[in-house]
Amino acid sequence: MSQPDCPFCRQLAGLDPLPEAGVVWRFPHSLAVLGRWQFYRGYCVLVARRHARELHELPDDLRRAYLDEMCLLARAIALAVRPHKLNHELLGNQVPHLHWHLFPRSLGDPGRLDPVWLAVDRANRDPEQARLLEGDPLDRLATVRLLQESLTALDAPRA
Amino acid sequence: MSQPDCPFCRQLAGLDPLPEAGVVWRFPHSLAVLGRWQFYRGYCVLVARRHARELHELPDDLRRAYLDEMCLLARAIALAVRPHKLNHELLGNQVPHLHWHLFPRSLGDPGRLDPVWLAVDRANRDPEQARLLEGDPLDRLATVRLLQESLTALDAPRA
Repeated sequence: MSQPDCPFCRQLAGLDPLPEAGVVWRFPHSLAVLGRWQFYRGYCVLVARRHARELHELPDDLRRAYLDEMCLLARAIALAVRPHKLNHELLGNQVPHLHWHLFPRSLGDPGRLDPVWLAVDRANRDPEQARLLEGDPLDRLATVRLLQESLTALDAPRA
Repeated sequence: MSQPDCPFCRQLAGLDPLPEAGVVWRFPHSLAVLGRWQFYRGYCVLVARRHARELHELPDDLRRAYLDEMCLLARAIALAVRPHKLNHELLGNQVPHLHWHLFPRSLGDPGRLDPVWLAVDRANRDPEQARLLEGDPLDRLATVRLLQESLTALDAPRA
């Protein structure tokens, strides 16, 4: 079920290091890592352990279990950072291995009515905007711990 | 469970007309309508019948049933248009009533590595780009019928 040329499969198998400091939680069917753009404090990426290109290609029981973990992580993010809104996105246009982007949105974000990708696109072209969206690297560990406290409080299952 | 000032609640209650020609399917827990941007042929919006701001605010059984319908619609879109990739997005930044955007992506789209929202943002500022992304209005009915055939073949439940 693992693909030798898939970057997420290689990371899950321990062949490559995880992309960013900050493993948030090891669920039975997925791995939650803190995402790059911590302007959206609590932003996580939830990578399925099973390699699949599309959600409907997973067997029903596995798909439901993965979605339950996604919802539990969303609830933990909501508990931890009290966002104005949550955005759930499963794209895979660049890395076609199932992974959810969970972005908490805040009232203080002037772009809060837009998808985050407009700001991310600017960050990909402008180092100053990238620094703004990445946030302070020193805050990452505190955010991981806060999310882990919420997941513990919610009795989240572990692999 | 209905909110008098919510545009989707008003449409579901029949107080306002549905936003676009093209009701695709009336599921028990949601309503699928053809989305505006048919450059992404088969793009649908799946509106939950129950008003909720966040997915994790739904009771577990209702959330799972809504997600099962989302996956079935994704499968039907895949069957109907054979996309290169599917994008699933639950945002609600502008209308905070649960609705999935299901965008089929094609290899012929030069922006296929990016989220659709970069092109949609250009369309919101440029009428010519909007016409390109909307596609031919005369094709909408054929797309609705094609999706309905796929949903029928998949034995999709009806309200």
